[in-house]
Amino acid sequence: MKFTLSEIQSLIGGKIIGNENTCIMGIASVATAKEGDITFVRNDSLVQQALTSCAAAFVIHRETPQLRKPQIVVENPNLSFTKLLGIVAQERYIRPAGMHPTAIISKEAVVGEGVSAGAHVVVEDGVTIGNHVTLYPNTFIGRGSRIGDNSVIYANVSILENTIIGKRAIIHCNSVIGDEGFGYLQVEKTHVKIPQVGIVEIGDDVEIGSMVTICRAALDKTIVGNGVKIDNHSHIAHNVVIGDNSMLIAYAKIAGSAKIGRNVLIAEDVGVTDHATIGDGCMIGGGSNVYKSLEAGSVVWGSPAKPITEEKRIQVLIKKLPEMYSAMKRLVKASR
Amino acid sequence: MKFTLSEIQSLIGGKIIGNENTCIMGIASVATAKEGDITFVRNDSLVQQALTSCAAAFVIHRETPQLRKPQIVVENPNLSFTKLLGIVAQERYIRPAGMHPTAIISKEAVVGEGVSAGAHVVVEDGVTIGNHVTLYPNTFIGRGSRIGDNSVIYANVSILENTIIGKRAIIHCNSVIGDEGFGYLQVEKTHVKIPQVGIVEIGDDVEIGSMVTICRAALDKTIVGNGVKIDNHSHIAHNVVIGDNSMLIAYAKIAGSAKIGRNVLIAEDVGVTDHATIGDGCMIGGGSNVYKSLEAGSVVWGSPAKPITEEKRIQVLIKKLPEMYSAMKRLVKASR
Amino acid sequence: MKFTLSEIQSLIGGKIIGNENTCIMGIASVATAKEGDITFVRNDSLVQQALTSCAAAFVIHRETPQLRKPQIVVENPNLSFTKLLGIVAQERYIRPAGMHPTAIISKEAVVGEGVSAGAHVVVEDGVTIGNHVTLYPNTFIGRGSRIGDNSVIYANVSILENTIIGKRAIIHCNSVIGDEGFGYLQVEKTHVKIPQVGIVEIGDDVEIGSMVTICRAALDKTIVGNGVKIDNHSHIAHNVVIGDNSMLIAYAKIAGSAKIGRNVLIAEDVGVTDHATIGDGCMIGGGSNVYKSLEAGSVVWGSPAKPITEEKRIQVLIKKLPEMYSAMKRLVKASR
Repeated sequence: MKFTLSEIQSLIGGKIIGNENTCIMGIASVATAKEGDITFVRNDSLVQQALTSCAAAFVIHRETPQLRKPQIVVENPNLSFTKLLGIVAQERYIRPAGMHPTAIISKEAVVGEGVSAGAHVVVEDGVTIGNHVTLYPNTFIGRGSRIGDNSVIYANVSILENTIIGKRAIIHCNSVIGDEGFGYLQVEKTHVKIPQVGIVEIGDDVEIGSMVTICRAALDKTIVGNGVKIDNHSHIAHNVVIGDNSMLIAYAKIAGSAKIGRNVLIAEDVGVTDHATIGDGCMIGGGSNVYKSLEAGSVVWGSPAKPITEEKRIQVLIKKLPEMYSAMKRLVKASR
Repeated sequence: MKFTLSEIQSLIGGKIIGNENTCIMGIASVATAKEGDITFVRNDSLVQQALTSCAAAFVIHRETPQLRKPQIVVENPNLSFTKLLGIVAQERYIRPAGMHPTAIISKEAVVGEGVSAGAHVVVEDGVTIGNHVTLYPNTFIGRGSRIGDNSVIYANVSILENTIIGKRAIIHCNSVIGDEGFGYLQVEKTHVKIPQVGIVEIGDDVEIGSMVTICRAALDKTIVGNGVKIDNHSHIAHNVVIGDNSMLIAYAKIAGSAKIGRNVLIAEDVGVTDHATIGDGCMIGGGSNVYKSLEAGSVVWGSPAKPITEEKRIQVLIKKLPEMYSAMKRLVKASR
Repeated sequence: MKFTLSEIQSLIGGKIIGNENTCIMGIASVATAKEGDITFVRNDSLVQQALTSCAAAFVIHRETPQLRKPQIVVENPNLSFTKLLGIVAQERYIRPAGMHPTAIISKEAVVGEGVSAGAHVVVEDGVTIGNHVTLYPNTFIGRGSRIGDNSVIYANVSILENTIIGKRAIIHCNSVIGDEGFGYLQVEKTHVKIPQVGIVEIGDDVEIGSMVTICRAALDKTIVGNGVKIDNHSHIAHNVVIGDNSMLIAYAKIAGSAKIGRNVLIAEDVGVTDHATIGDGCMIGGGSNVYKSLEAGSVVWGSPAKPITEEKRIQVLIKKLPEMYSAMKRLVKASR
C-alpha cells in the first residue's frame, strides 16, 4: 500500500490537517503503528495513547493539535477507517481471476459475466452463478444451486444441491451449506433415516464464517434472511428460519425448526432449542441455552436462559451459597 | 417429480381413497403444500390444519372424508412418508456416475463394482472400496483404508490411513475420520507428542454428519458400532467406543477412552469426560457435562449431569434463590 | 512392522532382560496386545494386568521376573515408548513424495528442498514453503503465506493470505488458518463489515488439530506462540495472543483480543471472553466460561469460572438446595 494523505482523504472524505502529501505505507492500530502507518482515534479517551503512537497520521474525530502530526478529521472515524480498510483489502487480497484450467464447470451450468473460479473448483449441472462471483479453489457447488451476483465463496466450501444464495454473499472456508438435516424415525430401537429433500435459501448481504453448517429442510426451506451474519463453527439445523439482520456469534447452535426473529443478537456459544421462537430484537448472552420461546426484545442469559437481571442476581447469590448454608445450619440448631 | 397417486400407493402401500389418477408433482409439509403436492397427516391432532392445506393428496393414518381430497390410508404415515421421501431423494440428488477423469485412484487400490468417484477425489495405495460406493468431489481417502459396500462419502471429507468403514455408511461433507488423537507427554513444561498409531473402526449403517471428527486410537481402535448416528460438529476422541444404535446429536464431545453403551441418546452440546462409561440406554439432556460414569438406563441432565428429576428440581430452586436469601436474612435478624 | 527386541533397544535405549532376538510384529496396549506385540508398563500398579497380557515383550520401569517374558527396562517407559511410536508412525504413515502432477504450485512461490505436495494442492503466488514441508492432497495455501521447515499440512486445510507458520508445525485436516475475523460496525440496524487486513503468526513446534479456525487480526497480528497445542474444533478469534507452550483442548473458544499467557492449560469446551487476559500457568477446567481476566497461576472452573475450590464447594451446595429450601420453609413457619 502506498498513498498520500490527500489520496486517502479523497477516498474516505474528511478534512486534512497538516501536510496533505504525507506518504502512507501501511495501516495499523494506535498501539502497533510504525512510521509510515496511518491509524485512527475514535474518541477523546484514545487521544492520550495516540500521543505516543509512531503513526505517521491519524483518522480522528476532532482536530487535535497536540498530536503534532497530520490528521484527517471525520465525523465517524470508525466508519471512515472501515472504508479505508476496504480499499486496503482489495489491494491485499487478490481474488482468483478467470477460470482456472482445472476448474470443472458443467456445460449445463449457467455462468454470469466476470465470474472467476480457482483451481479444482467443481460446479455441477444446473447450477446458476451470478455476475462477478468469485469461487476460491477446491470449492464444490452441487446440482441446481444458485449463487447471486458479487458473491465470494472461499476455499474448500461445500454447497449441496438446490441451495439458493443471494447477492453479495460471503462464505468463508470449509463451510457446508445444504447438507442433510439430522432426522430419523425410531423403529424397534433402530433409527430409520428420513431423507431430507428440502432446501436452504439464503438472502442478500449474508456473511457466513468458516466451518459453519446450514442444513437443508426436511421438506420445505431452511431460511437465512437478508443481512444476517453467522460466525465460525455455527450450526443451523433443518427448517430453521433466521430473520433479517440477525447476528450469530461463534458456535451458535440453532436446533431444528427454531424461528429467530429480525435484529436478534446471539452471543458466542448459545444453544436455541428446537421449535423455539425468538422474537425480534432479542439479545442472548454468551454460553446461554434457550429452552423456551422468547418475546420480542427479551434480553436473556444463562442456562437455562433467564432475564439478564435475574440471571445476574442469581449468579451473585450462588456465590453466597456457602454463607447461606452456614447461616441455615446455625438457625436450625438454634431452633431446636 | 411426477407420479399418479396409484403409482405412489404401489411404492409405499396403503389404501387409496378418491381418484387414483390424481397427479402428484411435489412433496411438502401440511402448512406449505401447494397445489399438486402430496403431504402427510400422522394423527388426529393434525387433521384440523390439513383442512386448510392446499395439498392435492394426503398420506394419512385413517380415512378422513371431511378433507374432501384423495388420500392414501396407511398404518404408520411417518414410515410410509419416509419411504416416499427416499424415492424423491433418489430422483432429486443424482450421485456422481463413474470415475471422473480428474479422480486420482491409486493402481494399488482395490475398487469394487459400480463405484463412482467425483472430480478431484484422491484414493491412495492399499485402499479397498466396496461395491456401489459413491465418493463425492474433493474427497481424500488415505492409504490402507477400507470402505464397505453401498457407502456414500460426501464432498471435502478426509479419511485418514487405515480407517475401516462398514457397509451403507453415509459421511457428510468436510468430516475428518482417523486423524491423530490429542496426546502428549509433559516433559519439563513442554509437550512431547505421542504419535497416534491406532485406527478408527466404524460398523455398518452408520451416518456421520458434516464437520465431525473421529480420531484414531493411540494404539488400538476407536470404535463406532453398527447403526450409530452422529450429528454435525461432533468430536469423538481417541480410544472411544460407541455401542450399536446410539445417537449423538450436534456438538457431542466425547473425550478420550470414554465408553458409550448401546442405544444411548446424547442430546445437543453434551460433553462426556475421558474414561467415563455410559451404560446402555442412557439418555443425556442437552448442554450436559457428564463427569462420572452412568449406570445403564440413567436419564441425566445438567452440568455436572445429575438425575433429571433432581436437576429439574434444582433449576426451580435456583430461581427461588432471591426469595431464599431474603427469608434467610429476615430469620437471621429475628434470631439475634 | 518387524523388529527384534535388540533392534528396538538400539532405538529407544534401556537394558534387555531375556531373549534379545524376540521378534516384534506390532505394538499395542497391555489389554489388547496379541502374540508378537510389544507393550509397555509404566509403573507397579500395571504389573498385575501385564501378567495376563498376550504381549511378546514389555517396555517396563523395572525388571519384573514374574512376567516370564522378555523386557526392555528403561527409566521412563512413557517416554521410551513414545520414541518407539514415532518409529512405527514413520513406517505406517507414508507421506506424499515429490510433487504430484495435479498440484498447482505457482511459479511465483519459493519452494524449499525436499518438499512434497499431494494431488490437487494449490500454492498461490508469493508463498514461501520451507525445506522438507509436506502438503497433503487438496490443501490450499493463499498468496504470500510462509510455512517453516519440516511442517506437515494435512488434507483439505485452507491457509489464507499472508499467514506465517513456523518450523515443525503440524496442521490437521480441514482446518482454516487466517480467515477473516468477525467484525462489524452497527450502522442504523445493519452490520457494516470491517474488512480484516491483519495476519496470523504461528511460532515453531505448534500442533493444530482438525477443524480448527484461527482468524487473522483486524489490523495487526493474531499470535500463536512456540510449542502451543490446539485440539480439534477450537476457534481462535482475531487479535488473540497465545503464549508459548499453552495447551488448548477441544472446542476452545477464545474470543477476540484475549491474551492467553504461557503454559496455560485450557480443558475441553472452555470459552474465554474477548479482551480477557489469562496469566501464565493458569488452568481452566472443562466447560468453563471465563468472563474476567485471571492472575497468573489461577486454577478455575465453572460458568462463570471461579477458583476451583469455591466452584467445587458450590456444586456440593447446589445439590443441597432441596434440603436447604425445606429447612428454610420450616424455619419461616416456626418463626411466625
